[in-house]
Amino acid sequence: MSFIQTDTFTIRGYECDAFGRMSIPALMNLMQESANRNAIEYGIGVADLEQRGFGWMLMRFRLRMHQYPGYGQTVQLITYPTSVEKYFIYRDFRLVDEAGTLLADAASTWLVFSMEKRAMVPLPDFILSLSPPTDVHPLPRLPLKPDFQVRPFVTTQEKEVEVGWLSIDKNQHVNNVAYVQWLLEAIDGETLQTKELAEIDLVYRTESHWQDRLLVQSTVETPDTFLHRIIHSESRKDVLLARSQWKLN
Amino acid sequence: MSFIQTDTFTIRGYECDAFGRMSIPALMNLMQESANRNAIEYGIGVADLEQRGFGWMLMRFRLRMHQYPGYGQTVQLITYPTSVEKYFIYRDFRLVDEAGTLLADAASTWLVFSMEKRAMVPLPDFILSLSPPTDVHPLPRLPLKPDFQVRPFVTTQEKEVEVGWLSIDKNQHVNNVAYVQWLLEAIDGETLQTKELAEIDLVYRTESHWQDRLLVQSTVETPDTFLHRIIHSESRKDVLLARSQWKLN
Repeated sequence: MSFIQTDTFTIRGYECDAFGRMSIPALMNLMQESANRNAIEYGIGVADLEQRGFGWMLMRFRLRMHQYPGYGQTVQLITYPTSVEKYFIYRDFRLVDEAGTLLADAASTWLVFSMEKRAMVPLPDFILSLSPPTDVHPLPRLPLKPDFQVRPFVTTQEKEVEVGWLSIDKNQHVNNVAYVQWLLEAIDGETLQTKELAEIDLVYRTESHWQDRLLVQSTVETPDTFLHRIIHSESRKDVLLARSQWKLN
Repeated sequence: MSFIQTDTFTIRGYECDAFGRMSIPALMNLMQESANRNAIEYGIGVADLEQRGFGWMLMRFRLRMHQYPGYGQTVQLITYPTSVEKYFIYRDFRLVDEAGTLLADAASTWLVFSMEKRAMVPLPDFILSLSPPTDVHPLPRLPLKPDFQVRPFVTTQEKEVEVGWLSIDKNQHVNNVAYVQWLLEAIDGETLQTKELAEIDLVYRTESHWQDRLLVQSTVETPDTFLHRIIHSESRKDVLLARSQWKLN
């Protein structure tokens, strides 16, 4: 059996930014919620994995914004797995308005870690055997290592944050969206006030925990793109690498 | 005409904290969303006021948690104005589960400011003339100045935060819930891990803006209560005063 998850959401006031546009963290939160609902249908939700000693880890995520919805607008979020491999499961997202116009889409790559081994493991059989829907058009698969991951990172701006209680989720890790929030809030004021995010490409590297201190670093790559890195302040380990692309409001 | 707003929400994963309980900021966000929907019915929503050069300001808010809902649970949020006076409008909230059990309630006091005068004004006629529902049992009205507001504040713990882009709303002020987030995250680890918030009483004093630096201060009042204060780092003006009450998990 294959399942396509379709959720209808009406955008709430606190899900919008200072310009009244849906905020990127709010959208990513909805995407993760729909992904989990779809996973529950497949019997591979967060709770299903937890029972068997496993957890999901997001490895890659690329979001493209085509048109921002605003307050009170009703949107549909559609998500489904597109393929399953030895180590990875791929999932796409589409956000459409009531007329069916594509507002945003995202591709993602997930892996499974064993809580006992505290390490990545091959996908267990109950995940490997699932059937992705066949009547969909998958987005291009994300490269495991994008170009910005393999090049040295030159920091031009840096800010420290401490992981607060409200940024950790039930498995005691920082939730994936919190990093994006920190990364966006570290962007210069002029960009935030005159531009909107067109695309963000994320590589999740290591987990982090409550009360960890993280350095949120960025550098200008081109007039329209930034590179971002979040590292543990002490161990200097990479937590997240990213590239964001902006366009004028 | 009087209106009672009833919204049905299914609790999403990111609305829960590390223990899988609905988080306080998530609940307050829903309350503010339902309040705005109810206000829109009355013709006094954020946008209605904006058009006439006014804005809402929350002055007092007291939330009492009776039972925390969790992931996937469907709850009803009910809100309505309870009375209107020269300067203030009072609004109650009730959160109930599907069996009608009361999970949380809140009382609040709102005022109107004039954008031109940058100051509080008497409620304009189109607000003053509204009819609150009569078939409800209002919560006790909150004192305008609770005892903890008039006593000197002794700081024992302090933390600085900078107002980020994602904490400001469409009228360029920090949203009311962001303060509560900062205040909760400044609480000591043991309390966060062993207790749950039973009640929080808030006094909003002055607005703050993007990139402002704020000091989040707290002090232990009794074994189960904290006093909190948020002030502008530079001007030392009070932004928020609060008392929180905790009980064992």
